[in-house]
Amino acid sequence: MFVNDCLNINSSGHLTIGGCDTVELAKKYGTPLYVLDENVIRENCRSYVRSFKKFYNGNGMPLYASKALSCKELCRIVNEEHMGLDVVSGGEIYTAVQAGFPMEKVHFHGNNKTADEIRFALESNVGKFVVDNLYELELLNKIADEMGKTANISFRIKPGVDAHTHNFIRTGQIDSKFGFALETGEAYDAVKKAVTYDNVCLKELHCHIGSQIFDIEPFVTAAKIMVEFMGKIYKELGVVISELNLGGGFGIMYTKNDEPVPYEDYMEKVSAAVKDVSAEQGIPVPYIFIEPGRSVVGEAGITLYTVGGKKKIPGIRTYVSVDGGMTDNIRYALYQSEYTVVNASHADKESAEEITVAGKCCESGDLIQEHTKVAPVEAGDILAVLSTGAYNYSMASNYNRIPRPAIVMVNNGESRIIVRRESYEDIVKNDL
Amino acid sequence: MFVNDCLNINSSGHLTIGGCDTVELAKKYGTPLYVLDENVIRENCRSYVRSFKKFYNGNGMPLYASKALSCKELCRIVNEEHMGLDVVSGGEIYTAVQAGFPMEKVHFHGNNKTADEIRFALESNVGKFVVDNLYELELLNKIADEMGKTANISFRIKPGVDAHTHNFIRTGQIDSKFGFALETGEAYDAVKKAVTYDNVCLKELHCHIGSQIFDIEPFVTAAKIMVEFMGKIYKELGVVISELNLGGGFGIMYTKNDEPVPYEDYMEKVSAAVKDVSAEQGIPVPYIFIEPGRSVVGEAGITLYTVGGKKKIPGIRTYVSVDGGMTDNIRYALYQSEYTVVNASHADKESAEEITVAGKCCESGDLIQEHTKVAPVEAGDILAVLSTGAYNYSMASNYNRIPRPAIVMVNNGESRIIVRRESYEDIVKNDL
Repeated sequence: MFVNDCLNINSSGHLTIGGCDTVELAKKYGTPLYVLDENVIRENCRSYVRSFKKFYNGNGMPLYASKALSCKELCRIVNEEHMGLDVVSGGEIYTAVQAGFPMEKVHFHGNNKTADEIRFALESNVGKFVVDNLYELELLNKIADEMGKTANISFRIKPGVDAHTHNFIRTGQIDSKFGFALETGEAYDAVKKAVTYDNVCLKELHCHIGSQIFDIEPFVTAAKIMVEFMGKIYKELGVVISELNLGGGFGIMYTKNDEPVPYEDYMEKVSAAVKDVSAEQGIPVPYIFIEPGRSVVGEAGITLYTVGGKKKIPGIRTYVSVDGGMTDNIRYALYQSEYTVVNASHADKESAEEITVAGKCCESGDLIQEHTKVAPVEAGDILAVLSTGAYNYSMASNYNRIPRPAIVMVNNGESRIIVRRESYEDIVKNDL
Repeated sequence: MFVNDCLNINSSGHLTIGGCDTVELAKKYGTPLYVLDENVIRENCRSYVRSFKKFYNGNGMPLYASKALSCKELCRIVNEEHMGLDVVSGGEIYTAVQAGFPMEKVHFHGNNKTADEIRFALESNVGKFVVDNLYELELLNKIADEMGKTANISFRIKPGVDAHTHNFIRTGQIDSKFGFALETGEAYDAVKKAVTYDNVCLKELHCHIGSQIFDIEPFVTAAKIMVEFMGKIYKELGVVISELNLGGGFGIMYTKNDEPVPYEDYMEKVSAAVKDVSAEQGIPVPYIFIEPGRSVVGEAGITLYTVGGKKKIPGIRTYVSVDGGMTDNIRYALYQSEYTVVNASHADKESAEEITVAGKCCESGDLIQEHTKVAPVEAGDILAVLSTGAYNYSMASNYNRIPRPAIVMVNNGESRIIVRRESYEDIVKNDL
């Protein structure tokens, strides 16, 4: 009925998530409120792990891309589900450490890791550094040397694959701030250099071709290109790189117009391609990592708002103001992202009213969705925006000094807070 | 030489702000770092206060629009400079209270004030509620009644003036989430209703026609329309509204292409228009408020970054990665805002290298500026982005769990922290 099966309608006509009445959740925890369904998250994790078993003899590991939503409880859950972690900053490493995550299963990404972050990552025994550029390679080698350590590394490669997605989130092509270009020889030169360094050990190659992708083909093409490159490195340098990280970018359903590919289909085709090309190239079939983030938590999450003022502008549109906005979900302002909006208080009624959902920030661009249809809405109703599990809390701000909402986890009719609501005290805490 | 006179070059060839060497500031406080020049802020405040004296017999008060940059020290400074405060949320009210700001000089704005915020504002004795819609009027009247209080109110009016600015930040026209439309009769009906309510007292009318405006004419037109409306209210309802709030929106210089209007020119023309139309309408000349935010702090601020990796993509562009990004300045990602970038370590050299300044977030759209010219730059250099005093810290996020930078205030060669850098502990503080 909705974008995800965790959502339903109860006998009061209210939207439910994970068996919890959203109107009751709003009453209990206040709004705005992020709500996540634990079973959806765990089942998404399991489907990745299962598909590795089914199509690749279990010879790989999915890493949760924590930039989609990083908090201690998510780290604990993905660990329990036998996944590793993809982190992109010292703050995400700190979160993993605090959650007791096994740090050897952590990959550290980013186009500009600072010296402090590299030191912190080495102290924390992060499993792998996904090196983005030569400057970083040298910096890492030097710091590891100073600390008497050897860092396991990967290289982020631009395979030159264009995944036909939103311009902002396209990363495989050569014009990107990320990684080493394959076609210019830059990636090959980096490999040659890395093998001469004492304090890094090149274990893996990595690529990431974009975000919110709905085609399998670009993934297959990228995988082939990467394995061919591993073949070239073996033939010309005698170096076996035993691990391949194919990144993330798997699309999810924001609205009924989105058609995500079942992950098994992806894994089936990609693993066949990797095996075939490995055989062609005469190299061992690599251990594989993938990095789902949005597809683990995106559809598992919704945001609940309370409706305040409603403004009908004759012949133009109807603005419905909610008690959150671009502070908790900046994706419409930033990318004009589409979302499904539901009047959670009247989820059983027909979506007969066209509204524009406005946030409460003092900024005209603070809209959550324009010209979307919901059941007729009035002040006090609870609005739910669906598929907000990824890149909502993680991108949230205190613009207008608005506190960030709490995150509540639901599980078979039970609910618990996993991230507390910010207080005004929190906001001024660092003001002198 | 630069966008503001507080910026200069010293004998080391380093950029200075308020007499402080930016490279030394970066060393002392770390990067990324927001730096504000106190004298520029104070002088901007004074120029507003002065122009009221010069052209309007001091019969008015500028309010600092704290959404541009809200923190306790800014509240203290604008209070010392005899300005009031424009706040838009409970968090900004809390900040003002904590700073000891005289709350009777505070105007509370926003299109969707929550019941909790209204209660908090009434408890805090906020001077005026700028009421956005009828729902809010009724809610405020009810809560004030429950608390045994009377709220002084203003109405936010859409005067229908289009200030030819960026679509996102255009707010005067009828298709806006903010305020009551004049042309549909909505505003007039609201006034009629308000005077019948017991717990609100209508003192003022307010309008705000947009942001970053460089023409005086739309301001003058809006002022005339508002005074004519006050005349109509007096004639038809016998109600004298004695105060007029003309909002903000005064443009600042981000690059040399921007040509801000001297504020005195604005005040001279607008005050003449208000006096003339008041005389025509046979009403007393109103007390005036204006609400500068960006123009108080924007040019006073810069952001300092340390350069990390540099990526020359042959025939395409050169990416220079810095240790901040869309987490501390989202305005390029959000509005494609132009900024002036300076190699602060070599500010005396010619801007001979074209670069794209990339942030460190794991997102391709995380750019600070594209194709901008700076003195040839290498790893370890300090880059300064100018005119970041407004809407940078205030919109900052912890995306990628990156801590928000500190804010340092400089004054005649001295520097002090006014907002501490966030720690990793701060970031996970609310994680359970």
